[in-house]
Parts: sequence; structure tokens; C-alpha cells
Amino acid sequence: MNTIGRLCTLTIYGESHGPSIGAVLDGLPAGAAIDWDEVRREMARRAPGRSALATARKEADAFTVESGWFEGHTTGTPLAVRIANGDQHSKDYSTLRRLMRPGHADYAGRVRYGGWNDYRGGGHFSGRLTAPLVFAGAVAKQLLRQAGVSVGAHILRIADVRDRPFPPLGVGREALEALSYRELPLLDEAQEAPLRAAVLAAKDAADSVGGVIECMAEGLAPGLGDPLFDSVESRLSQMLFSVPAVKGVEFGDGFTLAGMRGSEANDPLRMEDGRVRPVSNHNGGLTGGITDGAPVIFRAVIKPTPSIGRAQHTVDAERGEDAVLEIRGRHDPCIVPRAVPVIEAAAAWTLLDILLESRVWKGGAL
Amino acid sequence: MNTIGRLCTLTIYGESHGPSIGAVLDGLPAGAAIDWDEVRREMARRAPGRSALATARKEADAFTVESGWFEGHTTGTPLAVRIANGDQHSKDYSTLRRLMRPGHADYAGRVRYGGWNDYRGGGHFSGRLTAPLVFAGAVAKQLLRQAGVSVGAHILRIADVRDRPFPPLGVGREALEALSYRELPLLDEAQEAPLRAAVLAAKDAADSVGGVIECMAEGLAPGLGDPLFDSVESRLSQMLFSVPAVKGVEFGDGFTLAGMRGSEANDPLRMEDGRVRPVSNHNGGLTGGITDGAPVIFRAVIKPTPSIGRAQHTVDAERGEDAVLEIRGRHDPCIVPRAVPVIEAAAAWTLLDILLESRVWKGGAL
Amino acid sequence: MNTIGRLCTLTIYGESHGPSIGAVLDGLPAGAAIDWDEVRREMARRAPGRSALATARKEADAFTVESGWFEGHTTGTPLAVRIANGDQHSKDYSTLRRLMRPGHADYAGRVRYGGWNDYRGGGHFSGRLTAPLVFAGAVAKQLLRQAGVSVGAHILRIADVRDRPFPPLGVGREALEALSYRELPLLDEAQEAPLRAAVLAAKDAADSVGGVIECMAEGLAPGLGDPLFDSVESRLSQMLFSVPAVKGVEFGDGFTLAGMRGSEANDPLRMEDGRVRPVSNHNGGLTGGITDGAPVIFRAVIKPTPSIGRAQHTVDAERGEDAVLEIRGRHDPCIVPRAVPVIEAAAAWTLLDILLESRVWKGGAL
Amino acid sequence: MNTIGRLCTLTIYGESHGPSIGAVLDGLPAGAAIDWDEVRREMARRAPGRSALATARKEADAFTVESGWFEGHTTGTPLAVRIANGDQHSKDYSTLRRLMRPGHADYAGRVRYGGWNDYRGGGHFSGRLTAPLVFAGAVAKQLLRQAGVSVGAHILRIADVRDRPFPPLGVGREALEALSYRELPLLDEAQEAPLRAAVLAAKDAADSVGGVIECMAEGLAPGLGDPLFDSVESRLSQMLFSVPAVKGVEFGDGFTLAGMRGSEANDPLRMEDGRVRPVSNHNGGLTGGITDGAPVIFRAVIKPTPSIGRAQHTVDAERGEDAVLEIRGRHDPCIVPRAVPVIEAAAAWTLLDILLESRVWKGGAL
Repeated sequence: MNTIGRLCTLTIYGESHGPSIGAVLDGLPAGAAIDWDEVRREMARRAPGRSALATARKEADAFTVESGWFEGHTTGTPLAVRIANGDQHSKDYSTLRRLMRPGHADYAGRVRYGGWNDYRGGGHFSGRLTAPLVFAGAVAKQLLRQAGVSVGAHILRIADVRDRPFPPLGVGREALEALSYRELPLLDEAQEAPLRAAVLAAKDAADSVGGVIECMAEGLAPGLGDPLFDSVESRLSQMLFSVPAVKGVEFGDGFTLAGMRGSEANDPLRMEDGRVRPVSNHNGGLTGGITDGAPVIFRAVIKPTPSIGRAQHTVDAERGEDAVLEIRGRHDPCIVPRAVPVIEAAAAWTLLDILLESRVWKGGAL
Repeated sequence: MNTIGRLCTLTIYGESHGPSIGAVLDGLPAGAAIDWDEVRREMARRAPGRSALATARKEADAFTVESGWFEGHTTGTPLAVRIANGDQHSKDYSTLRRLMRPGHADYAGRVRYGGWNDYRGGGHFSGRLTAPLVFAGAVAKQLLRQAGVSVGAHILRIADVRDRPFPPLGVGREALEALSYRELPLLDEAQEAPLRAAVLAAKDAADSVGGVIECMAEGLAPGLGDPLFDSVESRLSQMLFSVPAVKGVEFGDGFTLAGMRGSEANDPLRMEDGRVRPVSNHNGGLTGGITDGAPVIFRAVIKPTPSIGRAQHTVDAERGEDAVLEIRGRHDPCIVPRAVPVIEAAAAWTLLDILLESRVWKGGAL
Repeated sequence: MNTIGRLCTLTIYGESHGPSIGAVLDGLPAGAAIDWDEVRREMARRAPGRSALATARKEADAFTVESGWFEGHTTGTPLAVRIANGDQHSKDYSTLRRLMRPGHADYAGRVRYGGWNDYRGGGHFSGRLTAPLVFAGAVAKQLLRQAGVSVGAHILRIADVRDRPFPPLGVGREALEALSYRELPLLDEAQEAPLRAAVLAAKDAADSVGGVIECMAEGLAPGLGDPLFDSVESRLSQMLFSVPAVKGVEFGDGFTLAGMRGSEANDPLRMEDGRVRPVSNHNGGLTGGITDGAPVIFRAVIKPTPSIGRAQHTVDAERGEDAVLEIRGRHDPCIVPRAVPVIEAAAAWTLLDILLESRVWKGGAL
Repeated sequence: MNTIGRLCTLTIYGESHGPSIGAVLDGLPAGAAIDWDEVRREMARRAPGRSALATARKEADAFTVESGWFEGHTTGTPLAVRIANGDQHSKDYSTLRRLMRPGHADYAGRVRYGGWNDYRGGGHFSGRLTAPLVFAGAVAKQLLRQAGVSVGAHILRIADVRDRPFPPLGVGREALEALSYRELPLLDEAQEAPLRAAVLAAKDAADSVGGVIECMAEGLAPGLGDPLFDSVESRLSQMLFSVPAVKGVEFGDGFTLAGMRGSEANDPLRMEDGRVRPVSNHNGGLTGGITDGAPVIFRAVIKPTPSIGRAQHTVDAERGEDAVLEIRGRHDPCIVPRAVPVIEAAAAWTLLDILLESRVWKGGAL
């Protein structure tokens, strides 16, 4: 299904070359103010055509709010957003119908939908479908901020260039939010030049590169989430793996924990100003699926953009024969910078849902 | 919530020291035969007390099927299973009420439930809750086998000892299933001795070690799953992160994709005996969230068991002061071997649900 | 939530005076042809301004399909529809903000949303929100027809004028579908004149009248649905009670069963051309929540339109004092004729979902 | 599915002749005290063998709480209950496998489950499955009481004997709860003798009778519930129609509204001690799907027990031929008295879920 969430649900629709893409945000609290300019700024972070590192294609991503907004506040009823697609008919897509692009969902999607899916530009599988997700995340980030929670992310790695990781106990909410003002959000600015060079090297080779995004939420109270199937990790990962190109998610020290001992991986607790606080954060702010008061930290790997200029072996699915494909056009040599606001959005929407749900159990016995 | 799945739902209940733990398996097809001895064998793989590498505690994990089973077949109505807890009152747990064990959910759970949760042995957060999951997975594996699908896993890493990874295009269903007959499922048997040594070294140090489990499903048709929120990755990861101790999940080449180029990461396709087949499997059998015909491969990291014999700094939550905790008793120095059937079970149940759902869309237009 | 369904979900958004109302239809089978002219005809049956019996307000209810439709077929991905609202700002609604209309959701909604809801024309509670439901139902009816199932309804009662009920074992699919071509669908055409008279009498009295709609589905195979919470009655009634003004739903002989004996209420079975067939249909085609091969028959009562021209006692919610309200404008003296396609739509969408789900269990053991 | 609810979910399992029936209650608030003796008393109201009006079969309905209960309070984790079935093997059910009982789900269920369902005593369709529902309702009633809400019901009608209806604006919470202490809950005690006579007359005729139960909830704040698919009516009716034998549900004046005018059906509002109060209650305490401050009132019709002593025409489903069935044994000539606590339970569980959900939106903007 194209709906996610328990109390705060997000339903996404659309194909990249249909009339519009959009979303229905249901379960938002009534009476919340939203700064639409800030939402537009978030949408612009994801939009193509901003940078030499990204595709030169221009997509406006202008949106209209169709419902759920009245006299400057949310109404509490579904907030629908519509993002018109531009230029829907400019290109000949007949090759795409036949030649399955490796690394894309062309073949899997063709089988899944019996060949009836809209294959133009990837259709419903297009990365363009992350635009309504960024919209939802931008709304969620504003609501979270009002609740004392900030979400931010940086590029931890692209190709072999690495930023330094987040300090496990946080950077402060202000510094975290400031990251989103940067075209290339990095903690170590010295990495910006080599990072640009790595992307442009791939571009020159008609190739692409992947990377890792690290995301953090500060300000979450302890005791949020659930054990088992609705653990914070379960809910965040369900959402994160819905973002095209994400192929791995890890929390806290993640895969590094495989080589650690319990005495290194356990986070001791201590009293601090009358409150319980973790002393370290190897578990990414989550034990038993529930927040423990440390920042929630996770990393998501973004695979290299599958659209590359080089010739690739594939099949002609209509003729049932081997073929060679050369994708022309302007592609992102690296999708990682544009994926940063998407990862933040995925986290923000999920955390908003968890935060709203905590109102139920925080109420205590009836 | 403690329920997961769309057409095939699993509801889990219980605390480690209550009368019983159990599960309700709803949506199973009617008329399926199940070999209960095989289910018992799977349960035994997870049960403690089997090995020098695990805790010496004995838990029988004997189960009774309470419903949904009639004259040797599933009825199609909910199949409930009950696993009685043994010895519920043998120990003094008053320390556990006060001293929050680092790395466990004691503190997070205490806040989450306002202090009302059953803290004995971790209560609802106990690893013992994976027993009903293994039961469900054992049922699912038998149904999947009847549909031509096999699920198996091996220990890819414990501490610094590493097994070789699965061949990306599979090992054959028979070899895959044979793995589960081994106490320490490894592809490279030469690693068994160093692996045992690594675990025993941690045990001798009153410490614990973590590891990585690699899991594969062979025989899945292409075109299973959904884009976005119900991607196969989304659904598998939601389930996998509900397993205590899992802190990271990656598909195909996973985090390694960060350093790869698109030309390396894309899986070319070719015709083979009239069918489309991927030539490589960097994407773990999944593109756009949907199976592409290659085996589904993923890895999950298991953090080191948080229960260790060493003194640890923590807080006394009742008195609101710092404290030192020494956990006594028999603990698993490494939970990874016992977690192998749990990871398989999580994958099997999820894949069964996806497979059942595919019957809807495979029906075509009405 | 504003989403309903299991495999085939419907999400509705909008307020009567916002930019648009609409819906996302998710889970439709791929490759289905839809006759949009027929959908428009269904929408016109619900639209106001068609008849002397209804409000003279004109609403175009023109729709655009935003996604999920490609080259003349459904794609299998979400089909989004947008219905622009006309004239959004023409009226002074400041009275409505203060004076709570009896029988409407003004007061309940104001409390529910903390006063932030869009109160113009009822906002999200407006009967106008049934337009996207009729759209969804019109799509579902076409898909059901392809599966051999027809849904139709007639006006069983308005005020004290009564049509004859459906014959319990059906009228034939053709006759059933033909009902929808009539402005006032009645089995006994002799009732049309008195029915019109009854509505106009209420209109002349600045008042309104209610009625009962009887709906039937023919062609459903036996064995569809589930026991307990997903019984066909449970699912139909959840949907039907979401239609504003519905205050009662009964299946088969419904409330009349209270005065019957078991020997009268049980439907005997017999063999007919090698198939099991019910001889009578006191249970409305449903036993144990599951279809039994007889037509599914139910009735829904529609309360009199709450908007009436007479002065009514109410409160001024802003000033916290008693008040008298006189609603001006053009109102429906009877909503029942326009509700007929809404009831059909509610039934059709629900039955489509149930029919799709039956593909899973009809597949047998794997 | 056999799970219902949003924040507070109920999962039911079992067949009447399997080892046990039971339920998992998930999402209960932590720290709630429950009086198990009161729960047992509610269970006894439903249990057979109590009265000359009901079957003489004895079922203990003793239950054990398997989880979610610790040191005298709910833990907030799933509360599982198990009700052992007595005497599972005492009878020859081979006739039941072949001869489909009219009015029961035998035929519909046989088709639904491909003949694999447990047919003994109706299996999963048995009225016995209402025992875990009564358990859940008894728990919910205690929690609702702590929140100032009471739920009660009376027999409005059996055969042609009628009790007087609830006063629309309530009877007071104490009087409402006192109803449940009576074997035959009636407002007009003078109807008790004729009511007994009507049931015994049916019993003497080897037949059965139906009736109507009227249920009321007092103390609900205004503003609870949702518009559209999660309207209070939608949620209550989904639950109510899962109770075997319920064939109709109406709120407020229900089907009588068909003959009323708007000026009669609208409930005027007035200020009373500074609060808005409805003056009448034709809408059953619900407008727009949301509570308006008046008591929630609804009625459910219970069809006559399908098990009767008379010979009935049916089919032999194994041989595919017409047959005559004579059901022997001790049956309920009227299930209505035993259904009263079931209807209350269905209402209580649903209202608890709605009440818990209201904590989210009552929190206002974040």
C-alpha cells in the first residue's frame, strides 16, 4: 500500500509523467501553524537543477495545499498536497517500454503490474515521488520543533570521501537544524572540495557514485516507541527503505557492533541534574525499540544512481532477447546530496507519528 | 502494537516470567499440512542450554497448538500457540526493579510503561519472546517450501572471525535448507574452531560478543512486493528490527554500495532459457522494492549480549542515584548462533505474507 | 482516519469550500479498462441541481484523474482523483462560525477539532465529501461487473410513501443495473407521484423528510468474507455509517427478525443444477459474516436533511449563550434520491475489496 | 482478520471444540487495576446453563490471564486470556460434516475454507467465541468507569413482548450499571413474566425466538470520534456485526427517522450550567460521527437462534443431494438474554479505543 503511519498517516500517489504527484497527510493535530516558505525551502533542497553535482533538469516542485488548512492553521482533517508535473509529453519513451534499465525497477515493476504500469521516467517508482515525502517531512519538522525536537542530517560519505560522524550525544538543536541551510551538509567543511571532485570524476566517466547519510534527532524524551513490531527502529526502517536507493540502515554503532564486546557496547547510565542520562550512545538512543534519552542516530546507505551514460547489457522485454542500452540525457552523477532532505523527512514524519502516539500512553491509567 | 502483517498477521504476547508466552497466527491458508516435529526442531535451534557457547539455562519451549488445526491440516482460522514458562518464581528480582541494566530496555521500558511493566527477566522485552516468532517462522518455512521457496542463514561474523558470504546467485535450495541442521551454520567450516574460541574468550572475560547473520531466500518469483512503504525491504526490516539486538539491516551489497560506482552496482539482465535473469546480484534480489528474480539476500547485525558479568555503572531508578550493577547468573556470551533461526523466521513470515498478497494482483484485472 | 479498506483502500480528503476534494484509490488491479463517461453519469446522479426535489445549487463535480491511469488502463498504482470546488468565497459564513446548526456536526466537530475546523458549508463533514466516494464506487461497479457482480438500489421509503421491497432471491443483474438510469429508482412506479408530493409538501413547510434505501448485490459467489470483525456485514456497515445521515443498517429481514421464529428465519438449502442454493433469503445472503450464494440485501435509513428553513433553538458557541438560528438558502428537502448512488458506491467499493481478498484464500494451500 | 481496534486492539482465536479459545488485548493503559471477580461475573452473564430460558449445557468459562498483568495492575503490554474448552470429544459430529444447518455458517464456512474448517459445534463461527469478547468488554467497562463512562443494556424486545425504551437523555450512570445485575435486564419489570412465557412457548414448539437489545453509554464527553470511516457509528457497527446473530444496528431514532421531518429529528442545543447540552436525542448522541454530549444509544437486532428441534430442509454437502436435518440436543430457545453482555462488551471495547485515541487530539497542536 501507499499509506504509512498509525495516528499520522501519509498516502502518496503519482507517476513522474502523469498530471500530478501528491500526498494526503492525515491525523495532523488541529490548530498548528505552518510556515509554507520553510516548506518550500525544504522542497528546493530536494529539487533537481540546483547544483553542478546534480542533474540539470529543472523541476519546479511548486505545490498547492488542497485541504486541511484554514485561516492560517491546520484543521485536523486531511491535508492534501498537489505537485503538478511539468512537461509531460516532451520525450519519446518507446525505448523505455522495451529495454529494462539495470538497477532500476523497470523489469521488477513490469512483472509486478503485468506490463500495465506507466514506465515513463520510472513512473510510480521515480525518485520524483520523494517530493511529496519531503513536503510531509517539512510539515513534520515544524511540528516536532514546536515539541522541542530537531531532526538533521549530513553526508557521512560519498565514494571514498568521508565526513566525521555526529558526536554521539548530540550537537545541540540549533547546530543540527543549521545543517539544512548548506548545499552540502558536512560537519567537516574541509571535505567539501574532495567530495565535489569525487562526484565530478564519476560524472566525467559517465558513471555515478553512492554514499551514506547520517541522521540525528535531538530532544526526544525517553520512553517513546514500542517493543517488537512497532519499535522505533522498525518504524523508521520501514519508512527509510521506501526511499528509492536506500539499501541499508543501521542505528547507533550499527554493523560495527559485530566486532565489539558487551562491555564496550552497553551505554552506562548516570544521574545528571536529577535526570537519568546515558553516558555514551552506542545504541543510537534506542534500547528495546524505545528511546532512552540519548539522540536517535542512524545511517542509511544510498546506492549509486542507476542511470549512467555507459552502455549496459540488458534485455528487450517485449522481444525477449538480449540487448544493449545506452541511457542518454542529464542524470545525477550522485543523488546523495538531494537525498539528505528525503532522509530527514522520512525520519521526521515517523517520529511525529510516534510522538503523537505517546500522548495516549503518557495519559496513564484512565 | 504487537501485531504485524497484512494478509498473514502475527500477534505475540507474553513476559518471560508470566504463565506463558505465545502467538496468534492469522490468515494462514486452509488445508495446509504442517510437520510439528520439524517445528520443534526449529524451536530447539533457538532454545537455550544446547551448547557451551550459550547460556546453561534450560528452557523447554514445548508448545501446544490451541486452535486453527483440525484433522491434520490448518483450518484457515487463527492458529494460536501457547508456550508455558517454566519456573516463574525461583529468583529474587528486587534488584532488577531498581537497577537499570545498561544495554537492556530496563530504563526505556520503565519510562514507557510508567514503571508498571513486568521487569523480571526483561519481561515483554525478553529475548524469550522470539520463541513464538521462531514457531511462526517454522510454520511459514514449511508453507514457503511447498511454494518452491527456501530460506536459510549462516553466521557471517562473530567478533573478528568471518565466514565467506553467500554466492550472490544462490547455493541451491537443498544446500540452503541443509544449513539449518548445523549447530553453527557456516559456509566455511574451517571457521568453526576460531569462532568457538572467540566466544569462549569473551565468556572467560565475563564479557560478550556480537556478530552478523546473513540470510537468503531462493525460489522467489520476480514481481513480488510493492513500491514505497510496502517494499520488500521495508517489510523485512520492520520485522527484523523487532528482534531484540538487531541494530542494522542491509540488502545486497548494502553499505559497501557507498563506495561503488553505478556501473559496478547495477545488475545487468540477460535472457536464459527464455526467462529474464539478473547476471549479478548487488541489489539483493530487489529493485524498486520488488523481487527481480535473483535470491533475496540481507544481513543483520546482532549487538553483543548486554548481560555481562562485569560491574557496570548505572542508576538506581527508585532512589534516583548512581549505582554499580553486577549481573550474576548464566548468560549467553554470544547470542548470534541462537539468533540464526530467529532471523530466518522473521524473513520467512514476512515473505509468506508477501507471497499470499501476490495472489491478488497476479489475478489480473477482474 | 480517512482511509478504509484492506487490499483496495480509499483515502478521501477535502472540505466543501477548500480548493478541491478528492480521493486516492489504492490497490486497484492493473490492466482494467474504465469507462469514464459512465463514471461521470454516476457522479451526475449524486450532484445537486438536477431535480425539483433537490437543492437548486449547481455543482459541476467535474473530475480529473491525476495518476494510476495510462494508455487506457489502470496501472495498479494509486489512482488519484481531484474534484475542484467551484465558487469558494461567495458567501458570508461568519454566522456559521458561531451558531451551531442542530442535526449537523457543527458543535461536535467544533469540540473535536478545538475550533480549528473549516466550518464553511460543513467543511470536511459536508455531504459534498460523498462525491469522491461515488467516484470510487463507480470505478468499483465497473470492475465488479467484469467479475459478474451487479450492485443496485432503490428508494424503499420516503416519509410515509413506500416502494415494494426487492424480491429476496433477486431481480436479475440487468434489471438491477437498469434501476440506476431512473431519476427516482422505484420498483413500483405508481409510487413516484405520491413520493414527489411528499417531498414537495415538506419543502413547502420549510422542512425536510427522510427515508430508506434498499440495496442489493447479485452475482456474488458463496464463501466471500470472514467471520468476526471482517464479516461482510461489519465491513459494509463500517462504510455505510461513514455516509452522513445514515443512522441505521439492517441485512436481510433485519429488525423484523426480532418477531420471527427460527423456523421462519432460517433459510433452507437445496441442490439446484448441481449447486447448493438457499431457498429463501431472510439472512440477506450472509451467514456467519460470509456470502451464502443468495443476493446480499441491506437497507440504510437516511435521516431528514438537517438544514431546514424553520427557526431552531441552538447555542452561540463563541458567546456561550442560547440563540435562535434561521438557515437561509437552497436546501435539499430530501436527500434520499441523491443518496442512492452513494449507498451503491459504498457497497460496491467494499465488495470489490472483499472480492479481491478472496483471491488469496481461493488459492488454497500454497 | 480476527483483530479489531486502532490503539486498543483485540485479537480473538479459537474453535468451540479445540483445546481453548482466547484473546489478546493489546494497547491497554499501564497501571490499571482490574477486579477479576467482576470480570467473572460478566462472563457468567453470558455463560450457558444459568437459566430455564437458555440451553442446559454447562460451560465453565473459567479463564486464566497469561500475560500483561503484574503485581495487581496492567503492564501496558499485551494481556492474553485463555479459556479452556471442556469436554472436546464427547460427541459424534460426523453428521455435521455433511448436513449444512440452515441459518448457521456451515455452508458459507465450508466454501470459505475449502472444507478444512473445524465444523464441530460451529468451530470458529460458534457463539462460544463471544466469551473472549465479553472478557475484553468486562475489562473495558472497568477502565471506562474510571474515566466516568458507563455502558449498560436491556432487552427491548423478545418476540412480541416489548420493554420501554431508554429515556433519550439517560437514566444516570448508577441505574445504568445496575441493569447488569438482573438476569433479565428490563426497564419495565412487568414485562418479565410475559417475556419468559414467550420464550418458553417457542421452546415448547421446538422453535426459537429473536429480539432487540438496546444499549446506552453515559458520561462520554462531546467531541469523541471521527468523521467518515472512523465515525463512532462505523466503529461500533463493525464490532457489533461481528457478533453472530446481529442482523441490524440503528442509532438514536434509527429507522424511525425515515418517517420524521427535519424539524422533529434535529436535536436543539442549549446552554446549561455553562455547558452546551442537546435538548433531545434523536441522533443517538452522535452527529457527524462524533459524540455531541448526549448519551450514545443504539439498538441491535438478534435473529432467532438457528438451532431448532424441528426438521429442516437442507443439503448433504458431501454427497451433493437434498436432505432433511433434525438437530438434537439442548439449544437456546432464545439467545437474547445471553447476548446482552456481549453487546455491552462490543460497545465498551470500541468506546475505550475511541476514548484512548481522543488523548492524541485533545493534546492540541504540539
